[in-house]
Amino acid sequence: QTYRMDWDRWLLMGLIGIVVGTLGFLIHQIIDYLIKLKWELVENYIQFFCPTGAPSGLPEVIGFLNGASIQHIFNIKTFGGTFVSCVLAVASGLFCGPEGPMIHLGAIIGYGLSQFKSEILGIHLPSFTRFWNSADKRNFITAGAGAGIASVFHAPVGGLLFTLEEVASFWDIKLAWQTFFCCMMAAFTTDLLSSSLCGFVYRGQFGFFKAEKRILFWVKNLLDMSVLAFVPAIFLGILGGLLGALFVFLNIKINKLRMWFFSTILKTSLRKTSKLLESVLVLVLTITATVYLPYFFHCTPVKILPMFDLTSKSKNISQVKWQISEYNCPPATLQIGPNLVKNSNQTFNEAAALLAENGMRGIMYLFRRGTHEEFGYASLFTALVFYFLLSCLTAGSAVASGLVIPMLYIGALYGRIVGLILVSILGIRTDEYGAWIDPGLFAAVGAASFFSGVSRLTISLTVIMVEITNDVQSLLLIMLAVMLAKMVGDWFNMSLYSSLLKLKCIPYLDAEPFVCHRKNWLNLELFAASDVMKPNVKVLHLKENIAFLAQLLANTSHSAFPVVYKSKPDQAEVFLGTITRLELCVLLENEAIFETESVEDSRSPPTILSYQKIRAEKLLDQQWMTMLLGCYSTDPRYQRLFINLEPYVNKSAVSVQAHFSLQRTYIIFRSLGLRHLTVVNFHNQVVGIITRKDLMSFQLEEKLGFQQTSQQPHSDEESLN
Amino acid sequence: QTYRMDWDRWLLMGLIGIVVGTLGFLIHQIIDYLIKLKWELVENYIQFFCPTGAPSGLPEVIGFLNGASIQHIFNIKTFGGTFVSCVLAVASGLFCGPEGPMIHLGAIIGYGLSQFKSEILGIHLPSFTRFWNSADKRNFITAGAGAGIASVFHAPVGGLLFTLEEVASFWDIKLAWQTFFCCMMAAFTTDLLSSSLCGFVYRGQFGFFKAEKRILFWVKNLLDMSVLAFVPAIFLGILGGLLGALFVFLNIKINKLRMWFFSTILKTSLRKTSKLLESVLVLVLTITATVYLPYFFHCTPVKILPMFDLTSKSKNISQVKWQISEYNCPPATLQIGPNLVKNSNQTFNEAAALLAENGMRGIMYLFRRGTHEEFGYASLFTALVFYFLLSCLTAGSAVASGLVIPMLYIGALYGRIVGLILVSILGIRTDEYGAWIDPGLFAAVGAASFFSGVSRLTISLTVIMVEITNDVQSLLLIMLAVMLAKMVGDWFNMSLYSSLLKLKCIPYLDAEPFVCHRKNWLNLELFAASDVMKPNVKVLHLKENIAFLAQLLANTSHSAFPVVYKSKPDQAEVFLGTITRLELCVLLENEAIFETESVEDSRSPPTILSYQKIRAEKLLDQQWMTMLLGCYSTDPRYQRLFINLEPYVNKSAVSVQAHFSLQRTYIIFRSLGLRHLTVVNFHNQVVGIITRKDLMSFQLEEKLGFQQTSQQPHSDEESLN
Repeated sequence: QTYRMDWDRWLLMGLIGIVVGTLGFLIHQIIDYLIKLKWELVENYIQFFCPTGAPSGLPEVIGFLNGASIQHIFNIKTFGGTFVSCVLAVASGLFCGPEGPMIHLGAIIGYGLSQFKSEILGIHLPSFTRFWNSADKRNFITAGAGAGIASVFHAPVGGLLFTLEEVASFWDIKLAWQTFFCCMMAAFTTDLLSSSLCGFVYRGQFGFFKAEKRILFWVKNLLDMSVLAFVPAIFLGILGGLLGALFVFLNIKINKLRMWFFSTILKTSLRKTSKLLESVLVLVLTITATVYLPYFFHCTPVKILPMFDLTSKSKNISQVKWQISEYNCPPATLQIGPNLVKNSNQTFNEAAALLAENGMRGIMYLFRRGTHEEFGYASLFTALVFYFLLSCLTAGSAVASGLVIPMLYIGALYGRIVGLILVSILGIRTDEYGAWIDPGLFAAVGAASFFSGVSRLTISLTVIMVEITNDVQSLLLIMLAVMLAKMVGDWFNMSLYSSLLKLKCIPYLDAEPFVCHRKNWLNLELFAASDVMKPNVKVLHLKENIAFLAQLLANTSHSAFPVVYKSKPDQAEVFLGTITRLELCVLLENEAIFETESVEDSRSPPTILSYQKIRAEKLLDQQWMTMLLGCYSTDPRYQRLFINLEPYVNKSAVSVQAHFSLQRTYIIFRSLGLRHLTVVNFHNQVVGIITRKDLMSFQLEEKLGFQQTSQQPHSDEESLN
Repeated sequence: QTYRMDWDRWLLMGLIGIVVGTLGFLIHQIIDYLIKLKWELVENYIQFFCPTGAPSGLPEVIGFLNGASIQHIFNIKTFGGTFVSCVLAVASGLFCGPEGPMIHLGAIIGYGLSQFKSEILGIHLPSFTRFWNSADKRNFITAGAGAGIASVFHAPVGGLLFTLEEVASFWDIKLAWQTFFCCMMAAFTTDLLSSSLCGFVYRGQFGFFKAEKRILFWVKNLLDMSVLAFVPAIFLGILGGLLGALFVFLNIKINKLRMWFFSTILKTSLRKTSKLLESVLVLVLTITATVYLPYFFHCTPVKILPMFDLTSKSKNISQVKWQISEYNCPPATLQIGPNLVKNSNQTFNEAAALLAENGMRGIMYLFRRGTHEEFGYASLFTALVFYFLLSCLTAGSAVASGLVIPMLYIGALYGRIVGLILVSILGIRTDEYGAWIDPGLFAAVGAASFFSGVSRLTISLTVIMVEITNDVQSLLLIMLAVMLAKMVGDWFNMSLYSSLLKLKCIPYLDAEPFVCHRKNWLNLELFAASDVMKPNVKVLHLKENIAFLAQLLANTSHSAFPVVYKSKPDQAEVFLGTITRLELCVLLENEAIFETESVEDSRSPPTILSYQKIRAEKLLDQQWMTMLLGCYSTDPRYQRLFINLEPYVNKSAVSVQAHFSLQRTYIIFRSLGLRHLTVVNFHNQVVGIITRKDLMSFQLEEKLGFQQTSQQPHSDEESLN
């Protein structure tokens, strides 16, 4: 009960972490391997064979964590599809990264390990049965999603905070510690496994963690910076917000168009084929652009400022060859000039470096300090436009794609452009007081701002930026840019994930409801719970007729029912608790507990199902249930049979009174993570019910807007009488 | 209403950040200045003149954030006292740091700016009146406390997460963003102001942020590390937990002894004097130890491994002189040896470096990489024992002292000892694969583990460690050590702050109640809300007699009363809402709203006080109120006067039913941040009330333990009938 005895929970958290970590390792290894393979076979367009799996499940995971109940996102088939699709999509050179799918995969693992049973594989082990309830399920899925980020970015704290920002409604410090542990294990496992392998080739000492590899975009030269650096950071923040909002807008438009287009295709097989074709089309477009565009660019000599290679004086020149894509440029020759300074006439193709390699590498180039004019305006702008449009297109297609790397990349591109403008104005300065005018610094700030503008994450993003760059010095700049980007973006629309959730009709409750009626923001304090509730609720009695129950379940789709109770025959029926549809179904499956009406004086103690048994997560067989319900409702035998619901009712179900302020009701609903809330009157009689859908912004707008036009807003006086 | 219109809230958050940042800057400058002054006057024991102020208010702030209502911790007098006391204590060389008081000062500023009025100064401006309610008050205090940490550690994200970990019960993403902004402003202001000044002397370019100064304990050499490094990290984590628990235990014992001792002194003036004397005694002890102990140590030559000073080849030798305390050692001479390598015969006193300088400097020495044998076992052990005991003693005395720096220091000391043992076994290795065997690395891990062992913070501590060292590479080691330290420590006792709060009888609700009866953990699911509630509640009616109200307020000390309501004369009275004592007092002060019984048919619309007016935070004059209540209860005129409470009742007050499970009740109480919770029966009639104090662990133990011995645990059957 207490966490001192919670060893199995911790064990499971550790396990989830390890498995997610391993998975993250596998994904990267396979991608590395495939990329290597790809460039050997690029002419053959091997990517045509890439199958399409499920699209990125990140919005669904976020919706689930918010409390919405979504089916079929956590099963082994989705897992396999996402894994294969993601690996192939990233390796094939599409403008996407492995992060979104990785979060989804982590969530699936969290679900799978804790609920260890899979209908598709038919596995059904009785381990960890005590976690088979929705609260624990959500906790493990949360931890798994966090571990996904921890693994892919080597950012354990960032992963933890991501879950915090997205799951904030049921935040609980105990869950935080367990997620902390899970993320740590995931990051550790990935680090340990990747310590020696690269593309499945053994390349180093096992168990030796190199900072170089662990910190994704390690910034080695922390810059002392002037307070003036905040001016471009403010600009980048605002730009990030604007571009982010534009990105969300375009992405939603494209997705709507796509949904409309596919809905016009009626045949399922044809629809699937056309989805596949779309992905292939995007892929062909991408590959063509990345392969042919760089031919329009000249080769640029490699320049590195002397003050920026303190550590690796001699190795430097030979390393550059590996660091920058040569593409169509002649190989370098080495000259040793006066003063023993080695000069190289190495050249590289800017556009090829930005476009043809994968996003991770591109970000690394852009973040690098002391490379002021490595990339010119032309290549940066070209890459920006192409990346922006193509990742917008890719994001909604049928391949599992993550948007994190593309977002960071786009941000880094315009950040670097801003930095380059500064350099053009102020010149390259290598002295102590001017060193902050470095496009690499502003690339990092820009990356954070665009990510924030699209995803509207703040705290976790800031921590992730520190964890992937190891640069605490520019933290304040990043915080500022992130904050401004979020505020500016929120002015225009919701975050990408919220918008996608809305598009998919998943009831996601924001931290605070913004209800707008005729361009006025409504004050929810002025409305009452009764204004949004659904009246005329179907209530159940403690002793309920089987046929009635069966009919009720067959004819409605409500997922929970209030149960009422009458202490004396002459009194009114008062609210006692709730019972869910699932529990009712399980009860109806067990004929042993049915009673006849006459056995009021208990002849034999009635059979009671155990708690464990009725807390099923899912109906095993939907069709059989439908048949059973039909049988119960028609067979006259069941007209005389009853079920005693009393032992199964959730008596700690929260209720609010009808006159409660809507604001308060929303907060109670969200912070207790409810799915239904019964509304009662002064005498504790059920008058209505509120579900998640009733509290969605657009629903509130409709209901409250109608109220406002038809009558005065509720005053307290009215609600009393 | 929505945050788009919340510009004043953001403005205020920014203001709080700026003021706290300025304050943090001032504290550091004054301390630096005084330390400089002090060493010039050390023989005169100038510290004798140091006044004693309030002790560190951190536990109180934490209790307040948890939801307890604590008086007199947020006023200008406390502010001044804490500021002076903290500055003098740290500068005088006591074993304490400025962080705890800084958090308290930040909280006071958050309170003061938002509630801008001070009874003591008599200021009472009507600005920001819309924030004069307890929810906003708490939000601003939270932000201020976070800004305190952000300012003192230059750790904005750490400050934010600290408030999260301590205030997790009412966490809200909107508050998080605002705190994020406030912390950013605080860190920025401190950075900006300290950029040019040191000890109030102008020393550099204003507005130029040097990484060297911003990152407190900047680790420049990230170490590639072997997986073997996790073994000493696990050991350090366990050790941190054990020593942390011991520290808490000792500190509480000493505080109990101290409280008992001072309670035996009856005269107030004498008690104050003896408190002062105690501080002076501790101070003398500290100064004597720090000044004379180092005489027992020899001078050690300065050694620095060649591979670790890549950046500052030439400056190095001359800088060392400033970096390491010379104390009684002869000044260095410079020799230029073969290969142009400069050698110095500089020596320093290990114990003086560790003891006689302030903690901040000591931590910097201990964290430094590549200084494997700079400090020997003797000096480290001596410093460890002295610091451990003296900071334990100082922590509870009458001076405002922070424990953060001492905790980090103690941890760094034993971490370095462990590192030194490793070095002794494995030898000094400078090759790539052995570089991780560095006492500096383990000092950082040890510091985190001890801090966690004492404070039981995890997430915020990890982030703070990254922000003060800029070392993401050792993040996993630190996470592991922190986690283990917390788990081991929790095995023995509560965190220092929780223990202090318990000692001070402040009702602090833990994330989860651990209720132990006869060495068995009780399962709160088996108990009901009715088991802990206080029955026989004094309820008020909508129309209440003045004399009755006055008597009720005079004779009880309850801070809120349920209000009941009867719709028809023949029906039972049902629960409508609550009204607080403060609101009642304000109502009673306004005779204009009193009514006679007969005016049922409203001749004139009754006067109603505005919402703004009755939401007073505090009674202006307690004595006058007592007099007024006395007058009302005795004067027969008021027997016939009534007050209509209806417009003033909080009708959105949450209630639970008596049969609710205790576990669920606790969660509702804590996550909605309640102070009282009315318990009703099936017919919504008031049967009891639950306050924070009723949910404290020891209260639960008493009540539930008694229940368990006297009867069977409540089953659901019983609670129904």
